[in-house]
Amino acid sequence: MPDKVKKTPKEESDELLTLDYNNLTEEALGNGKGLSADDFARMKQLLTDAHKEVEARYKNGELPFMDLPRDQEILKSVRKLADMARKKFENVVVLGIGGSALGTSAVFQALRPLNHNDLQSQKRAWPRLTVCENVDPEGFGALLEGLDLKTTYFNVISKSGATAETMSQFMIIYDQLQRTLGRSSIKDHLLVTTDPEKGVLRKIAVDMGFQTLPVPPGVGGRFSVLTAVGLAPLAMVGVNVTELLLGAQKAQDDARRQPQQNKAYVFAALNHLMTREKKRNILVFMPYADSLARVADWFGQLWNESLGKNVRLDGQPNLLAQTAVKALGATDQHSQLQMYMEGTEEKTVCFLGVENFRHVVPIPSIFKEHGELAYLGGHNLGELLNFERRGTARALAENGRPNLSLLLSRVSPMSIGYLLHTLEVATVVSGHLYGIDPLNQPGVELSKNFTYGLLGRDGYSAFNERFNKGLSQKKKYILK
Amino acid sequence: MPDKVKKTPKEESDELLTLDYNNLTEEALGNGKGLSADDFARMKQLLTDAHKEVEARYKNGELPFMDLPRDQEILKSVRKLADMARKKFENVVVLGIGGSALGTSAVFQALRPLNHNDLQSQKRAWPRLTVCENVDPEGFGALLEGLDLKTTYFNVISKSGATAETMSQFMIIYDQLQRTLGRSSIKDHLLVTTDPEKGVLRKIAVDMGFQTLPVPPGVGGRFSVLTAVGLAPLAMVGVNVTELLLGAQKAQDDARRQPQQNKAYVFAALNHLMTREKKRNILVFMPYADSLARVADWFGQLWNESLGKNVRLDGQPNLLAQTAVKALGATDQHSQLQMYMEGTEEKTVCFLGVENFRHVVPIPSIFKEHGELAYLGGHNLGELLNFERRGTARALAENGRPNLSLLLSRVSPMSIGYLLHTLEVATVVSGHLYGIDPLNQPGVELSKNFTYGLLGRDGYSAFNERFNKGLSQKKKYILK
Repeated sequence: MPDKVKKTPKEESDELLTLDYNNLTEEALGNGKGLSADDFARMKQLLTDAHKEVEARYKNGELPFMDLPRDQEILKSVRKLADMARKKFENVVVLGIGGSALGTSAVFQALRPLNHNDLQSQKRAWPRLTVCENVDPEGFGALLEGLDLKTTYFNVISKSGATAETMSQFMIIYDQLQRTLGRSSIKDHLLVTTDPEKGVLRKIAVDMGFQTLPVPPGVGGRFSVLTAVGLAPLAMVGVNVTELLLGAQKAQDDARRQPQQNKAYVFAALNHLMTREKKRNILVFMPYADSLARVADWFGQLWNESLGKNVRLDGQPNLLAQTAVKALGATDQHSQLQMYMEGTEEKTVCFLGVENFRHVVPIPSIFKEHGELAYLGGHNLGELLNFERRGTARALAENGRPNLSLLLSRVSPMSIGYLLHTLEVATVVSGHLYGIDPLNQPGVELSKNFTYGLLGRDGYSAFNERFNKGLSQKKKYILK
Repeated sequence: MPDKVKKTPKEESDELLTLDYNNLTEEALGNGKGLSADDFARMKQLLTDAHKEVEARYKNGELPFMDLPRDQEILKSVRKLADMARKKFENVVVLGIGGSALGTSAVFQALRPLNHNDLQSQKRAWPRLTVCENVDPEGFGALLEGLDLKTTYFNVISKSGATAETMSQFMIIYDQLQRTLGRSSIKDHLLVTTDPEKGVLRKIAVDMGFQTLPVPPGVGGRFSVLTAVGLAPLAMVGVNVTELLLGAQKAQDDARRQPQQNKAYVFAALNHLMTREKKRNILVFMPYADSLARVADWFGQLWNESLGKNVRLDGQPNLLAQTAVKALGATDQHSQLQMYMEGTEEKTVCFLGVENFRHVVPIPSIFKEHGELAYLGGHNLGELLNFERRGTARALAENGRPNLSLLLSRVSPMSIGYLLHTLEVATVVSGHLYGIDPLNQPGVELSKNFTYGLLGRDGYSAFNERFNKGLSQKKKYILK
C-alpha cells in the first residue's frame, strides 16, 4: 500500500532536542504546586555547584562514559563486524540482561523500521535482531524452536562475565551449537563482550579463541550503550553508529557548557526540586512514539538503578528518590491518565515527543455525514498523536499536575545519540544533587546471594540456610 | 532442537491461584513496617463491610461484569467466528485501545505459544493476532506495509463507537479495503464490536451490513475482557475461551463466599491497608514469566483507571491512591530492584509467579572447571527463574520492604480466567474500601476535549481557544 505510506521529506534541523518546562512552573500550575521564583533562584545555585563537582569528577577520570562518543577504535571494530554479519548471517541474537540489553533494544527500535524483523530477507539488507533478556523457559524455548543456528550469530554480553541469567543462556546455546554444528564451528557463531581482562567469560573466550570485544572499565552497564555492548549488535543490524556517536558527542559538548542553559543539568535540577520541594516521588516517562517506547525502559534502569540509594556519600541516610515509571502515549491515555489526573499528587510526567515523524499516514476524508468522525478526515496520524500529547500536557497542567516535555525534531541516529547521552549526564548530575553515588548498585546483591544459595553454589550455603530458617512463612497468611 | 525443549507432564492441580502475604506482616518486616495484629483485626471488619456492600450492589444489577462468565450465548457466537477465521484468514487484526486491547493482548500472550505469530502457517493452525493500540504513523505504517488484506480479518472494537484513535484506524483500513478489494468485499473483512444500540459505529455497521458483536451495557472497557471484546479475537486465534470462562466462574463463585478466606477481598484489603496505614502509594506488579508480562499492562489499567479518583462517593475529597506499576522478573532485577530495595519507602511489590512452566529447558552441566558457572549446570531455566523470584521476595522482606505473591500452579485457560476475574473483583472491592466509584473515569475527558479542539471538531472550538489563549508558554522555560 505505498500510496498511503509516504515518507516525509528529510530536513536538517538545528535543534536535536528541546526541553520545555513551562508546565512545571507556579505560573502554570498555581501557587504551591509549581516551581516558584525562589525555587528557580535556588536552582541556579544548585546548577553551578553540580557543574563544578561533575566537571571535577570528569577531569579526574571518574566518569569515563563521557569519553565514549570520541572512541574511534570501537567504531572500526564494529564496522568490520557489521560487514561480516551482513554477509554471513540472517539473525543476530544478543544474550544479555539489564544494561547489556536495554540500550540495544531502545536504539534498535528507534532507528530500524518497526517491522525490521518481519521483513523478508531480500527487503531487509541486514540481519534480524533478537535481544534475550530473560531466563523464562517458555520464552527462551520459543526462541530456540524458531532459530536456525547455521544462520545465527550470538553476542554474549556480561560485564562481569558471571551474570547467572546470561551465563545460563550462554551454556545452553554453547551446548546447542556444539551438538548441531560441531565444536569447531562454535567460534564462528559467537562474539563475547565482557571485561577486557577479568572474569570467567573472558577466560573461556581466550581459552577457546572466541572473538571478543571489551566493556571499558569504569563504565557501568546502564551507561554502556555507546560501548561495544550496544554498538556491536546495533552496527550488525544496520544502525548508523557513527552518527549515533556524533549526536552523543554533541550532547557531551553541550553538557560541559554553562549549566543554566544546559539541558542535561536543567533536567536533573528540575526533577530534583520537584522531588525535594514538591514531594513528587514518581517520574512518569512517557514517549508519544512507538519507536521510542523502549527508550522508556532504558531510561527506567538508568534513573532508578542510579538514584535509588539509601545512603549519601557523606554517610547520612538518603530519604529522597524519584522512581521513574514508563508509559506510552497515546495508548496509555486510555489506561493510566485517570490516575495521573486524579490520583495522589506525587507525580511529574515527562513527555518525550517527536515533531516530525518519518512517515505520514493520512486519515481519509470519509464518513463526512457523521459528525463524530468527520473531524478526523484530512488530518494524519502524526498530527493526531501530537495533538493528543499536547492536549494531555495541557489538561494535566490545568489540573495542577506538573509535567515537562523533551521534544525531538525527528528521530535520527544523531538525535537519539544526543538524547541518550543527555539523559546519562542528567543522571550523574542528579546523583550529585542528591549527594549519592549514581554509579553503584549495592541493593541488588542480597537477592542474587539468596538465588546462589538456593541453586547450591559453592560458598553460598549460608544464604540457603538463612533462606530456609529465617523468616517464618505462616500458613495463616497463605490463601489457597 | 526438540531434545532441549521438553513439555512438562500435564497435571491437574486443585489450586488455581495462591495468595501468600507473609511478607506484608510485621513479623516479616519489623515493627511499624508491616501489618500488625491490630491491622488484621481492622481488616476483618473492612472485609465484612465491603462484602456486604459489593453483594448488595451486585444483587442490584450494578456489577454486570460478575455475570459474564455464565454467558453461554457469547460462547456460541465466538465459536462460530473462530471456525470461520480459522478457515478463511491468516491474520486477525484488532483495532482498539485501552480496555478494547489490553485484555486480549494479555490472554493471547499467556495462552498461545510466545512465538505463535512467527510460526509458519502450517504449524500454527490458527491465524496470527495483531492488536493495534496506537495511532503512531510509523507503527501503523509498518503494519500496513506488511499486511495482505486478502487474508486479514479486522475486528474494530470501541464501546462508545467514537474513540478517536480506533476510528482513525478504522477509517484508514476501510479506505484501504475499498481501494484494494472493492467496496463489496469490505464486510467480509470486518467485525465490529460496539454498544448494542448506541453510537456512530453501530449505525455504520447496521447501514453497511457489517457483522457485529455487542459490548454489554454497564460493562466498562477495563472489565470487558470476558465479553465479545476479548473472547472474539481470542477464540479466532485458538484460545480455549470455554475454559477461560470456567476459570472466571470459579473465581466469581469463590468471591461470593465469606470474605476472610476470599482472595479477591483479601488482596484488596491488604493493598488498601498498606496504602492507608503505611503510605505505600506504589504497587509494583511483577510477573516472573514472559507469558504474563502483558497481564501487568492489563492490571495497570484496571487498577489505575478504577482507583485514581479525587472525589469520594460521599462528596469528600479522596487523597488516597495506589499507583500500579509494571515490572518483569527476572529481567527487571537488573533494572528496577535497586530502587525497590533502597529507594523511598513507598512501594508494595506484588509478585506473580508460576510454579510449573509448560516447558523445561535444562542448563547443561558444562564448564564444571569454573566455579562461577558450575553451580548452574543440572538446573533448568524454570528453577532459576523461580529461585530468583523467591530470593528477591526474601531480600526485599529482610530489607523491610513489603511484598506479596500471587502464585499460579500453572498457566492455563482455567487459571488465567480465575486470575483475571479475581483481580477485577478485587478492584471493585478496593473502590468500596476507598469509598470511591471504581467504574467511572472522569479525568480523561479534558485531554480528549483539547484534542478535539485542536483537530477542529464541531462544538469544541472553545477548547481550541482555551488551549491557545490559556497558559502562557514562556520562552525562558524552553531550552533548545
